[in-house]
Amino acid sequence: MERVQALEIVKPHLTDHRYTHTIGVMETAIQLAKQEGIDQGKAELASIFHDYAKFRPKEEMRQLIKEQNLGDDFLNYGDELLHAPCGAYWVKHEVGISDEEVLSAIRFHTTGKPDMTTLEKVVFLADYIEPGRHFPGVEEVREVAVKDLNYACIMSLRNTMAFLMKKNQLVYPDTLAAYNHLITERKK
Amino acid sequence: MERVQALEIVKPHLTDHRYTHTIGVMETAIQLAKQEGIDQGKAELASIFHDYAKFRPKEEMRQLIKEQNLGDDFLNYGDELLHAPCGAYWVKHEVGISDEEVLSAIRFHTTGKPDMTTLEKVVFLADYIEPGRHFPGVEEVREVAVKDLNYACIMSLRNTMAFLMKKNQLVYPDTLAAYNHLITERKK
Repeated sequence: MERVQALEIVKPHLTDHRYTHTIGVMETAIQLAKQEGIDQGKAELASIFHDYAKFRPKEEMRQLIKEQNLGDDFLNYGDELLHAPCGAYWVKHEVGISDEEVLSAIRFHTTGKPDMTTLEKVVFLADYIEPGRHFPGVEEVREVAVKDLNYACIMSLRNTMAFLMKKNQLVYPDTLAAYNHLITERKK
Repeated sequence: MERVQALEIVKPHLTDHRYTHTIGVMETAIQLAKQEGIDQGKAELASIFHDYAKFRPKEEMRQLIKEQNLGDDFLNYGDELLHAPCGAYWVKHEVGISDEEVLSAIRFHTTGKPDMTTLEKVVFLADYIEPGRHFPGVEEVREVAVKDLNYACIMSLRNTMAFLMKKNQLVYPDTLAAYNHLITERKK
């Protein structure tokens, strides 16, 4: 699917702010994909659609996760997680994207997971560091991202967990597992 | 077992520094047990023996965990975790303490776990806040501990995880599960 067409499809599903964010994620993901030598088209497609379900009603998403067995775990760690697995599902069934690598990058862009593919890492990280993001520590992650994708993922995973814990929010177990996996790989 | 006898048994297993720490944990745990209305004798016993295995050779501990099925997970998240399950085992088989509540408080004093008993929380927390501990944030946890045991546990769990992540160290999954469990209870 061409970029223009993909953007046209996703636009009505997003607010202006979220659409601008999506463009930022897309540009960042393409840059990271180039750097890592992976398929830029897949990075483009996954990042354009990563927030496809962001504004769907929470109850509809909960229902979908239960009915389609998208992973009960996603139901128990805060509503912010719902749009990722639901997005992957609807991008497949409504938009017709069937590339499982692309769908998986959408599915895990919020939580991460152990043993991520490079494409999954690229979309996860691009979502965290795209130019529209402004929070303490993001500049440091951007600097690392251009030379060490894995360590930049470690940084964003741990920043995310620390941020959630500071606000007394739940942390999805696979986010920690993603961190632990990358740390273990790094020590080898 | 009387306090004097218990201290005599544990002393040869500890350095002077660690013995002083143990006394601090004991006094803090008794105070917390009184506050929470649980058996002070059990808090005393568990805290006296909580670091019983602290200075055993790592290889001996790894061996014990494998042979006695003390939980393979304890092997994969850093050597600092080994002394807790091994301590519980040896306190049972060498010292002859059979109280499972006491042994469980020793077993989980480093990692925590979901759905901890009050005794487990008391020993876990006392180990973190005893008067010999000096690190950023400990005073804040001490202040909370005298009025809200659960929230003080949340604080020490998240401080511990943040500390480990800042040093690029692995985080034991049940430590996060302990945190998530307490957060969920709190939201009810």
